[in-house]
Amino acid sequence: MQAELLYEGKAKRVYQAQGKPGHIVLEYKNDVTAFNGDKKAILTGKGRLNNDIAAHIFEFLNEKGVQTHFIEKLSGIEQLVHQTEIIPLEVVVRNVAAGSITRRLGIETDTSFNPALVELFYKDDGLGDPLVNDEHALFLIDITRSELREIKTKALEVNRQLSKLFESINLKVVDCKLEFGRLANGYVVLSDEISPDTCRLWDITTNENLDKDVFRQGTGDLLEVYQKLLNRLKART
Amino acid sequence: MQAELLYEGKAKRVYQAQGKPGHIVLEYKNDVTAFNGDKKAILTGKGRLNNDIAAHIFEFLNEKGVQTHFIEKLSGIEQLVHQTEIIPLEVVVRNVAAGSITRRLGIETDTSFNPALVELFYKDDGLGDPLVNDEHALFLIDITRSELREIKTKALEVNRQLSKLFESINLKVVDCKLEFGRLANGYVVLSDEISPDTCRLWDITTNENLDKDVFRQGTGDLLEVYQKLLNRLKART
Repeated sequence: MQAELLYEGKAKRVYQAQGKPGHIVLEYKNDVTAFNGDKKAILTGKGRLNNDIAAHIFEFLNEKGVQTHFIEKLSGIEQLVHQTEIIPLEVVVRNVAAGSITRRLGIETDTSFNPALVELFYKDDGLGDPLVNDEHALFLIDITRSELREIKTKALEVNRQLSKLFESINLKVVDCKLEFGRLANGYVVLSDEISPDTCRLWDITTNENLDKDVFRQGTGDLLEVYQKLLNRLKART
Repeated sequence: MQAELLYEGKAKRVYQAQGKPGHIVLEYKNDVTAFNGDKKAILTGKGRLNNDIAAHIFEFLNEKGVQTHFIEKLSGIEQLVHQTEIIPLEVVVRNVAAGSITRRLGIETDTSFNPALVELFYKDDGLGDPLVNDEHALFLIDITRSELREIKTKALEVNRQLSKLFESINLKVVDCKLEFGRLANGYVVLSDEISPDTCRLWDITTNENLDKDVFRQGTGDLLEVYQKLLNRLKART
């Protein structure tokens, strides 16, 4: 099914889907990177795990009526998705303080945010994906004020649904990084991936991390942890 | 008139005004600092210049109906102001890109913002006064959503009035850093100082800086430049 490589990112390759205009194929790579690419590794099997985990999550969201780019899992490392024009914002939703926000704003790790806190980062590797406010986003990006409002509302809805999903397997969503894209008809949908690469997931009972922090902090075996997460997701259905 | 020292900042000392509850005296120091205190100097006469310039600006704003903490100039280096509880935000209004925003977001110097762009920074020296969005501000600071909206509206009005004042002496307000405080009755007013320490002011004809950038960048004599600015303000009235 694969054809022309459109784009290669840190964790995925993007191909035009052959014979299916408006559709693309995401191939999950075995690469894992952290700290803006300063720490990296290749872990055989990681692409397969993330593809499987992301497919579970997107299927759940689609069932719950959240509109996403996801169509179906094609193979061990591939997904078919609707082609979108990516809006260059990382939308981070935080339920609990962890990672960069604790250093940036002096907020203690494990502090709860209620309501969940939304942050926007401008996707620009050269600038280090800087935090922006709404006015920056409107200046820098081809987006309307109402689309920006819509994206935040959708991000909070995704966070609510993810929290429900993960609570059912005894995990809490500490934070998640979401990206949105525009379909050909202009409609804004959840795009990119959702996986333990892009969410912090803590065991509700033990606070154990089942996410990329085990790689960032060198506190565990990423493949084992992602497999454990996948097993819980599979046991659920 | 001076009495108990309440607080000493980088550029001012704050005293309780004797026999006048709810009033304080600001004493402008000769210290000049830049880059979060990494570059500093003491320039005799700088406190006097800034006190004089700030008094001109606050008198203009008060005349225009902008509510500020300023009451009157007391002496060469002192002002009498209403005591306020400072809201720990630096509210930066930008008409033209210069300084940190050009590096942070890759926006070219001299790019116009229309409408003016408002940024909030959380006043915390230890954290380096980080940029925050509205949700961060509401989480970190004892402030309501409606007060935050009011502060931004007032900041834009101050910027409009400052732009008029400086246009009349052939200067453009590139950006200004404002602080707000709560009076005893809860009313939020413009507080702190407004001076070439806290605004970027460029000559409309030549783009010459008449502000602290001459010290930051080592491109001119700060005292001469501040005196030139004061002369223009005095010639106006």
